[in-house]
Order: sequence, then structure tokens, then C-alpha cells
Amino acid sequence: MKLTKYTDLGLRLLMYLSLRMDEPVTIQEVSDRFAISKNHLVKISHQLTKAGLIVSTRGRNGGVCLARPPQSITVEEVLRATEDNFDLVECFGDTKNQCVISGACELTSVLLRARAAFFEVLRRVSLADLVKDGKMLEESLLPLCKKTRAGQCKSRPPQAGKRVG
Amino acid sequence: MKLTKYTDLGLRLLMYLSLRMDEPVTIQEVSDRFAISKNHLVKISHQLTKAGLIVSTRGRNGGVCLARPPQSITVEEVLRATEDNFDLVECFGDTKNQCVISGACELTSVLLRARAAFFEVLRRVSLADLVKDGKMLEESLLPLCKKTRAGQCKSRPPQAGKRVG
Repeated sequence: MKLTKYTDLGLRLLMYLSLRMDEPVTIQEVSDRFAISKNHLVKISHQLTKAGLIVSTRGRNGGVCLARPPQSITVEEVLRATEDNFDLVECFGDTKNQCVISGACELTSVLLRARAAFFEVLRRVSLADLVKDGKMLEESLLPLCKKTRAGQCKSRPPQAGKRVG
Repeated sequence: MKLTKYTDLGLRLLMYLSLRMDEPVTIQEVSDRFAISKNHLVKISHQLTKAGLIVSTRGRNGGVCLARPPQSITVEEVLRATEDNFDLVECFGDTKNQCVISGACELTSVLLRARAAFFEVLRRVSLADLVKDGKMLEESLLPLCKKTRAGQCKSRPPQAGKRVG
């Protein structure tokens, strides 16, 4: 039982954007800071744009930013936007279910209750909650940034000009 | 976010054994009744044996049965025996975590709380709870059994003799 890599990366991207609400951020910057694949980040940013969680702007100083205040985006909403589905077992799916005891089996409702309890926790937590100790997060990201960008990077890294996202 | 196929099949096997506490059941019978792969069931039965949830007996009338009363086996225990891990995101793993914000990130504790809430529900449900309406389950399994075993199968299917598991 695990979340997809995309959800994991998507949450990191959104947390970063929650710390950078005052200006668009390039995907290159996020890739450098987290030391994760830019290609993966581009794909996940498309998915998050489609879900209405981020917006991207073109041109000089372009990049991506949150579409809404971080207080209004819950972790549950992110997971629902990035995971393919939450079909814990075969009978949760509408089309591929061939289990012969569907309908007579108590397990379905038990797993539905467990899944609901899981989401209930995530519904109460926003992106703002995740980055409330922003300083500590900044400190954990900055050393890597300095290393990968050969001294260009200060507490606020430079924008990458005409790059989009 | 989904459980493995093995967990899904393992739960079906254990529910079936919970209905058949008075005698060992062959894997062939379970395979026929659920119309699922015997090979998969053999593998999952080895895993469940190793976890101390079922025992297998050889010889005439041999087969597999629950190692303990179904009231004492929770759904949580089954999942812990059959899932590889519950590492929702990279930082949950001990060895492969390369996330640069580990330690400064609130997400880890949030996901841990959500996972705990998920298990809390499953800890309160036993195999006995899952099959409490045994008659309805029997009825959903019987038509298939009749079809696949060409009339041999009555309300209690015949044992398969010397087959083990």
C-alpha cells in the first residue's frame, strides 16, 4: 500500500510553491532544490494544472504558482488529483470486478470505512499547515541548492527568464 | 493507492476458511469456488502459513485451515502479513529515502496519522465479523461451484483426497 511517485513529487512541488507565494517558480528551480527529475516535475505540474491546483505563466519571470491560497488546498485534494484511483481491492472498481462474493461480503464496507478514516485525517490538513515551519524547510533545501547551482543560489534563487514552468 | 492482489486473494481465502472451521479445505476447492488462479492461492497460502494464520495438513482429507479462531484474527493482521510494506511515500522507507526535506517536513507525520487511522478501523474487525452472514456468502459461492465442478458440489463440497493445500 503506497502512494504513487507522482503524488509524492506533487506534494513536494506544492509545498515549495506554498513557500514561494509572492512570485512564479520555475520547474528547474524545484528540480535543483529537491534534486529530483525535471521531467517528472513537468508531468506532475501538468496534472496539477489540469486539476486547478497550480497555474503557469509564460515569459520573463514566468513559472508556476499555486492557483489558490495554501490554506484552501487540503492534502486530501492533492491525493485525489494525483492518484489514479483508490480502489483498495478488486470490488472497489466499477468495471473489472469479478469477485463472486461481491454484495455478500462485509470486507467492502470495512475497507471503505478504513479509507474514509484515512482521508478524514488528510482533509483536515492544508498545504499551509505542511509548511508552517517554513524556515526549517528553507534550511533543509538551501544547502543542496548552493551545491547544485554553484553559488548562484541565495536565500531566494534567481528566476530563469523565459522558461515556462 | 491499492492493496496487492495477494492481500485481496488472501482475504478471500481466509474468509472461506472462516466458514469451514470444521475441516481442512483444499486450495482446489477455494480456486473453484472463487474462480481464481490456483497458483496464486498456493503462493498466498504459503505466505499465510509463514505468518502463522493458517496451517496445512497432508494426507487424505488434508488441506488448509485457520491456525486460530476467526474471532482472534483481525483484518489489520492479515494486511500486515500480506503487504510488502506500508511506505506511503519515499521518506517512510528506512533505506531508499533521498528526500532532502526529511526531518523538516510536516507531511510525514500527517501521513503517519492517516495510516494509523486506516489501521485503527481494520484492527477492530475480525475474520469472524467478515463472515457473520455466512449463509449469504455461501449462496454467492455455490452457483459458481455447481457450474465449475459439474454437479459434484453440494452445500459442502467433497474433499479432494490426498491433495495437500
